[in-house]
Amino acid sequence: MIETDILIIGAGPTGLFTVFEAGLLKLKCHLIDGLPQPGGQLAELYPKKPIYDIPGYPEVLAGDLVDNLMEQIKPFEPGFTLGERAQDLEKLDDGTFIVTTDEGTKHHAKVVAIAGGLGSFEPRKPPISNLADYEKKGVSYMVKNPEDYRDQSVVIAGGGDSALDWSIYLADIASEVTLIHRRNEFRGALESVDRVKELKDLGKIKLITPAEVVGIEGESQLESLVIRKNNNPEEDFKIETDHFIPLFGLSPKLGPISKWGLEIEKNAIKVDNSLDYQTNVPGVYAIGDVNTYPGKLKLILCGFHEATMMCQSAYQRIFPDKRYVMKYTTVGGVTGFDGSKKEAPKAVVKAID
Amino acid sequence: MIETDILIIGAGPTGLFTVFEAGLLKLKCHLIDGLPQPGGQLAELYPKKPIYDIPGYPEVLAGDLVDNLMEQIKPFEPGFTLGERAQDLEKLDDGTFIVTTDEGTKHHAKVVAIAGGLGSFEPRKPPISNLADYEKKGVSYMVKNPEDYRDQSVVIAGGGDSALDWSIYLADIASEVTLIHRRNEFRGALESVDRVKELKDLGKIKLITPAEVVGIEGESQLESLVIRKNNNPEEDFKIETDHFIPLFGLSPKLGPISKWGLEIEKNAIKVDNSLDYQTNVPGVYAIGDVNTYPGKLKLILCGFHEATMMCQSAYQRIFPDKRYVMKYTTVGGVTGFDGSKKEAPKAVVKAID
Ligand SMILES: Cc1cc2nc3c(=O)[nH]c(=O)nc-3n(C[C@H](O)[C@H](O)[C@H](O)COP(=O)(O)OP(=O)(O)OC[C@H]3O[C@@H](n4cnc5c(N)ncnc54)[C@H](O)[C@@H]3O)c2cc1C
Ligand SMILES: Cc1cc2nc3c(=O)[nH]c(=O)nc-3n(C[C@H](O)[C@H](O)[C@H](O)COP(=O)(O)OP(=O)(O)OC[C@H]3O[C@@H](n4cnc5c(N)ncnc54)[C@H](O)[C@@H]3O)c2cc1C
Repeated sequence: MIETDILIIGAGPTGLFTVFEAGLLKLKCHLIDGLPQPGGQLAELYPKKPIYDIPGYPEVLAGDLVDNLMEQIKPFEPGFTLGERAQDLEKLDDGTFIVTTDEGTKHHAKVVAIAGGLGSFEPRKPPISNLADYEKKGVSYMVKNPEDYRDQSVVIAGGGDSALDWSIYLADIASEVTLIHRRNEFRGALESVDRVKELKDLGKIKLITPAEVVGIEGESQLESLVIRKNNNPEEDFKIETDHFIPLFGLSPKLGPISKWGLEIEKNAIKVDNSLDYQTNVPGVYAIGDVNTYPGKLKLILCGFHEATMMCQSAYQRIFPDKRYVMKYTTVGGVTGFDGSKKEAPKAVVKAID
Repeated sequence: MIETDILIIGAGPTGLFTVFEAGLLKLKCHLIDGLPQPGGQLAELYPKKPIYDIPGYPEVLAGDLVDNLMEQIKPFEPGFTLGERAQDLEKLDDGTFIVTTDEGTKHHAKVVAIAGGLGSFEPRKPPISNLADYEKKGVSYMVKNPEDYRDQSVVIAGGGDSALDWSIYLADIASEVTLIHRRNEFRGALESVDRVKELKDLGKIKLITPAEVVGIEGESQLESLVIRKNNNPEEDFKIETDHFIPLFGLSPKLGPISKWGLEIEKNAIKVDNSLDYQTNVPGVYAIGDVNTYPGKLKLILCGFHEATMMCQSAYQRIFPDKRYVMKYTTVGGVTGFDGSKKEAPKAVVKAID
C-alpha cells in the first residue's frame, strides 16, 4: 500500500504543480497516471510545440515546460505510479481514501486531487477481430519502456507524429522496425518525416505503404501479422514479428472517474470554484481541465491557480487545528523534503568607512 | 484624452499579464502606474531577488520576470501613463469610464481593471517642516527619470537598497552625489554596499554618516540643505545642492481607490470570485493583490488566473453579441497588433518514397 498525504490522479501540468504547492505546506504527494510519462497532454500530444500563454514565458515548448515543472517539484520528492489507470475510489470511515489502479496497485491518502485533464488516454484500436487476445502478448498501444523492445522486431502502424517518432526512436534499439501506414503520405513535423525517409534509405526502417494490418497470428503469443497492401486482399502477405504497436492516437475518456459518485457536468467534474475546487465528496478535489464551474477555461495557467487554492484547503482538512501562515518563497525560501534549501541571498548590514 | 478598451490601474505582474490575455481577445489596454517603471512590487521592492513559486520557473529573479512579461505583451502594444496616480473614477451614462490621474491626465475606457496591488506607493518622508514647499522644486521621493539629474548635484538620504542603488546609478550621471544616512551601517545587497564603498574611495560619491537632513533653504527653489552630524545640533552645517532625494521607503496605500464607491474589506476590494472578479460596480474589475474573496492568496500566479478570467468577462461586456471561441495559443498562434505573428510550425503531409 502506497501511503501519501495527497494522492494526485493525473500527472499533467496541474498535477505536477500541485506537488510544489503541497510541498510548501509540507504535504507529501503521490501521482498516478495512465501514461508512461508525466506531462499530460503536453507530453503526449504536443511536446515539441510552443505555448505562448504561460505567464512570464513569451514562448516555451510544451516538453520544456514539463521538464521545468519536474525540476521545480524535485525537492518535494513526489512518488509516481505511471502506466496505470486509477480505477476505484473508496472512502474509509476515518475520512481517508484508498485508490486502486487497473493493475491493482493500492494508494492510501488523506486527500485526493483529481487532475485528470480530459480523462485517461485510451488508444484508438485497429479493427482486427482477435486483437484483444494478443494484448500484453506482443500487442501494445503505447511505448511504456523502449528497452522492452531491445533486439526484438517491431511493427508500428500509423501515419502521425507518434508513429513517426517511435519508429525513429526504436530504430536504434529494436533489431528491426517496420512502419505500416494505410496512405503513402505521413502527417507530422517535417523533421520527423524527413528523418524516417533517411532511416528508410539507410535500411534501418522498413516502410510498407499503403497497407494495413488485417490479421494477427500466433499460438500463445503474437508471432506474425497479415498485411494487406493497396487495399487488395489478393496482395495479402504475412510478416513475422515480436511486437505490434498500432499508434492510431489516444483519445481521452473520463472513464472510471465518472463512476465515483462525483457530480458530472459536460463530461467534467463540478467543483466549488468560489472556495477550494472541492467536489461534492468532501476531501476529493478536482483541478485543471477535469473540472467545471461557471466560466471555466481549460488553460494551463488556470490549473496552476486551482492547484494552489486546493492545497490550502487540503492543509486545513489534514490539520484542522493548525493555522497556516503563508510565507513568500522569496522571503522564506524553499526547503525540500530531500534536505535541499533554496533561498534568496540575505541583505547585509555593513558600515562603509 | 487617452482612449482604450481596458484601462488597467497598476502595472504590476497582474496588470501586465492582463494586456496579454486581452490582446488574445483583440482588446487594447492602457496602464497607469504611480511608479516610474512597470513591475509593481517586483520592480520596486525586490527586483534582484529570486522567486521560486512561479509555475514552470524553478527560480526566476523578480526583475527578470517583469522583463519577460514586458516581452510577452509587446505584440499587443500597451500604452503607459507612468509616474502618475489614478485619482478619480467617473462612470459615464453610456457605461464607459473616465479615469483621471493626480496630474490631470484623462483616460477613457470601456472597462476598468484595478490591479493596484497593495495600493499606490507613497513615500515615507523625513520630518522636515518645510519639506512640502520644495516638492517639484528640487525635492523628490523617487527617481522618475535619471536624466533629470545629468550634470547636477544630488543629495540622497537613506540607508537601504534604493539609496545605495540610486547613489551608484547617479554617480555616473550627476555632477556630484552625496549620500547621507543616520547610521554608519547600510542595509542592502552586499554587492551594493561594496560598490558604494568603491565609489566613495574613487571620490565619485560623498558619504556623510551618521547624519540627517534637518532643514531646507532656498528662494523659490531648493538651494541648500542643513545637515546635522552625530545627532548634535552644534555640528549643523549647510551644503548646496540642486536636488534632494530622500529614499526612506515607499509604503503602499489604497488611497484614492478606496473612495470610488467600491466595497472594501481588509483594505482590499471585494470581488465576485465565483465568476469574473468584478466589483460591485459593473464594468470595474479588481484583480491580483488588490482584491479579496474567501480564501484569497496574495500570490503572483493567482493574479495571472484572475486576469485571464476577467478578460473573458470584459470581452462579453464590450461585445455582448459576440460569442468568443477560445483557441489555444499553440494552435492559433499569437497575432500582435503590431502585425507580428508567432505560431507553431505546421505539420506537413508528405509521402515517403
Ligand atoms: C494541441 C493542444 C494545444 C494546446 N495549447 C494550449 C496553450 O497554448 N495554452 C494552454 O494553456 N493550454 C493549451 N492546451 C490545453 C492544455 O494542454 C491543458 O489545459 C492542460 O494539459 C491541462 O492540464 P491538466 O494537468 O489539467 O490535464 P492533462 O494535461 O490532460 O493531464 C491529465 C492527466 O491525467 C491522466 N489521467 C486521467 N484520468 C486518469 C485515470 N483515471 N488514471 C490515471 N491517469 C489519469 C491522463 O493520462 C493525463 O496524463 C492545448 C491542448 C492541446 C491538445
Ligand atoms: C519581499 C516580497 C517578496 C515576495 N515574494 C513573492 C513570491 O515569492 N511569490 C509570490 O507569488 N509573490 C510574492 N510576493 C508578492 C507579490 O509581489 C505580489 O503578489 C504581486 O506583486 C502582486 O502583483 P499585482 O500586480 O497584483 O500588484 P503589485 O505588484 O503591487 O502592483 C500594483 C501596482 O499598482 C500601482 N498602483 C496602485 N494604486 C495605484 C493608483 N491609484 N494609481 C496608479 N498606480 C497605482 C502600484 O504603484 C503598483 O506598481 C512578494 C512580495 C514582497 C514584497
